[in-house]
Amino acid sequence: MKLTINRTTFMNELSTAQRAISSKTTIPILTGVKIVLTDEGLSLTGSNADISIETFLAKDDKKAQMLIEKTGAIVLQSRFFGEIIRKLPEDLFTLEVLENNQVAITSGAAEFVVNGLDPDNYPHLPIIDENNQLKIPVRVLNKIISETGFAVSMHESRPILTGVHFIQSNSELLAVATDSHRLSQRVIPVENAVEDFDIVIPGKSLLELSRSFKDEEELVEISIMENQVLFKTKTMYFYSRLLEGKYPDTNRLIPSSFNTEIEFSVPALLSAIERASLLSHEGRNNIVKLAITADEVTIYGNSPEIGNVQEELTYQKVTGEPLEISFNPDYMKDALKAFGGIDVVVKFISPIRPFTLEPVDSDISFIQLITPVRTN
Amino acid sequence: MKLTINRTTFMNELSTAQRAISSKTTIPILTGVKIVLTDEGLSLTGSNADISIETFLAKDDKKAQMLIEKTGAIVLQSRFFGEIIRKLPEDLFTLEVLENNQVAITSGAAEFVVNGLDPDNYPHLPIIDENNQLKIPVRVLNKIISETGFAVSMHESRPILTGVHFIQSNSELLAVATDSHRLSQRVIPVENAVEDFDIVIPGKSLLELSRSFKDEEELVEISIMENQVLFKTKTMYFYSRLLEGKYPDTNRLIPSSFNTEIEFSVPALLSAIERASLLSHEGRNNIVKLAITADEVTIYGNSPEIGNVQEELTYQKVTGEPLEISFNPDYMKDALKAFGGIDVVVKFISPIRPFTLEPVDSDISFIQLITPVRTN
Repeated sequence: MKLTINRTTFMNELSTAQRAISSKTTIPILTGVKIVLTDEGLSLTGSNADISIETFLAKDDKKAQMLIEKTGAIVLQSRFFGEIIRKLPEDLFTLEVLENNQVAITSGAAEFVVNGLDPDNYPHLPIIDENNQLKIPVRVLNKIISETGFAVSMHESRPILTGVHFIQSNSELLAVATDSHRLSQRVIPVENAVEDFDIVIPGKSLLELSRSFKDEEELVEISIMENQVLFKTKTMYFYSRLLEGKYPDTNRLIPSSFNTEIEFSVPALLSAIERASLLSHEGRNNIVKLAITADEVTIYGNSPEIGNVQEELTYQKVTGEPLEISFNPDYMKDALKAFGGIDVVVKFISPIRPFTLEPVDSDISFIQLITPVRTN
Repeated sequence: MKLTINRTTFMNELSTAQRAISSKTTIPILTGVKIVLTDEGLSLTGSNADISIETFLAKDDKKAQMLIEKTGAIVLQSRFFGEIIRKLPEDLFTLEVLENNQVAITSGAAEFVVNGLDPDNYPHLPIIDENNQLKIPVRVLNKIISETGFAVSMHESRPILTGVHFIQSNSELLAVATDSHRLSQRVIPVENAVEDFDIVIPGKSLLELSRSFKDEEELVEISIMENQVLFKTKTMYFYSRLLEGKYPDTNRLIPSSFNTEIEFSVPALLSAIERASLLSHEGRNNIVKLAITADEVTIYGNSPEIGNVQEELTYQKVTGEPLEISFNPDYMKDALKAFGGIDVVVKFISPIRPFTLEPVDSDISFIQLITPVRTN
């Protein structure tokens, strides 16, 4: 293998593949990046127990300035290799596999010779059936991930809850996540519908996926197999394992009738919650209290050692019965951040029943649920 | 005490005072910031065992938009107070001391009430004799600190070496630091000379001092007492303790005759050293080798497990005997960074004797010394 290539372009590809590489792996070859050069171009692969990423750079990609002198493959220790490339003196560098998997990296007057690993020992990525593919814009997938991914459980006590549940049926894609204290569910219409599916993707994989996309406007093809999912764009294959087991039926958790409803602008409510949570974070119980009457809505935060805060909230509209309810402000902050700069309606049943948040704009099927904290 | 003030301006003052406040202190009141409001303006004080910072904001400072309704003083828990101010909803806020050292912080609809501490229990700052003051521009002081501060020792085994040695005599100010492996010494001429002094200021204090200045063009007045130094600008008093003990005589360490001399552009040499150190960092001994002949200068880095690097260096001029010398590249990197984008001359005696680096421009009295590593 011998290749001359633009350093910046190569670094970009390498950073993407490196998202899947962990220095903590117990399998030495997985600390490496697999480099494969064919007549079509260059592909880099990184992998760990949960995800694998394969990037592809076509030989005629202009910014890459690729000169392919000899095709071939090698595995190089990823972190160290990246540091070398980053510090090379010129815009271009040459990568050449010598004997015994040694690799020469040259740029200007700098000549590195580093030890590589046999590419035949690198594990094969799964082969995925590409017939049953859902195609959606990257932008839409990224949005669903940011709207639900934050609500997955961080605890391995119920592993299935560490993933986001995706259900494709009836030309709709539903994504839902819950850590049993709060829930976030988003439904989007899907054109050119494919076979129905019902899978749970690890939250961490989705976060890395979201960060790996480079172009929000292109389409991503989603292919599913028994225990793997592949997200495919023109320049990247992103594989994730699926979580095994049955996801709980979250549909029955979402209430349908309420006694108090109030509309807020999300940014205004969010900054008031952030102020109130300053004090609740210092206390033993991280809770804030919301008091709603027909003509006044007030939030209270309190920490016996430090002090207290109260703030009369501005709101758009309130209907129904007066209510006092306490909740963990961090769940509320996460929920509000997922909505962005819109108006939401918050619907309550009673101080001890979960309450919901939805966009005022009823065209958007997006609902969040937060369980309150009983204070007496 | 009752004061209304611009939030951003106040936050700036608070951040400066907070540089001296440690949450790890064993004296509870020192986790607080002392706030004193007089008819002249507002002062904030933070303090720890090593440094104390007192900032001053004049009442007629326009950007502060100060409205002084009642003078007074209070101590507030610094970190928490800062978080509250940062999250307040409006540009202005009001601070009012209520009964029992309780303090109301209001801005827009948000009303915080927090517990303060009695300002009479806050320790007094040292009173420093202001007759014997050295005045230099902040810019000059900052430069001396960045040129020498990095070379102080990080180990408490010889506490005196954790400071920078400042000697004022004969209209010159000399600053020198060494950790016994390398040394950096800078001398600047001083006008309107004051009484001679000879003090050692902790390196950490100098780093905080450097970060606390806001205007590089103003003058700083330096006053010295037996165990304290005060750096005074119009808006800040910065106190540091001095290190006790006798600083070693570093003058005798600096050689005066050499056998090999070579001139480099600092940026070119620095990037080559950084590349070579990539490999040396992975090895057991963190060393790189420089080989100098009459017509070629090459640097080598090596790590048995990973590989090796060699690079022919570009240089301006070489004179004297051929030489091979090994050294810790990190000391070289620090030294070169302190010079900035200039040309330097590196002067060697032999592979086992310390070598020096100086600006080619001999008007600048700045010398660095690095001890090589014996490799056989």
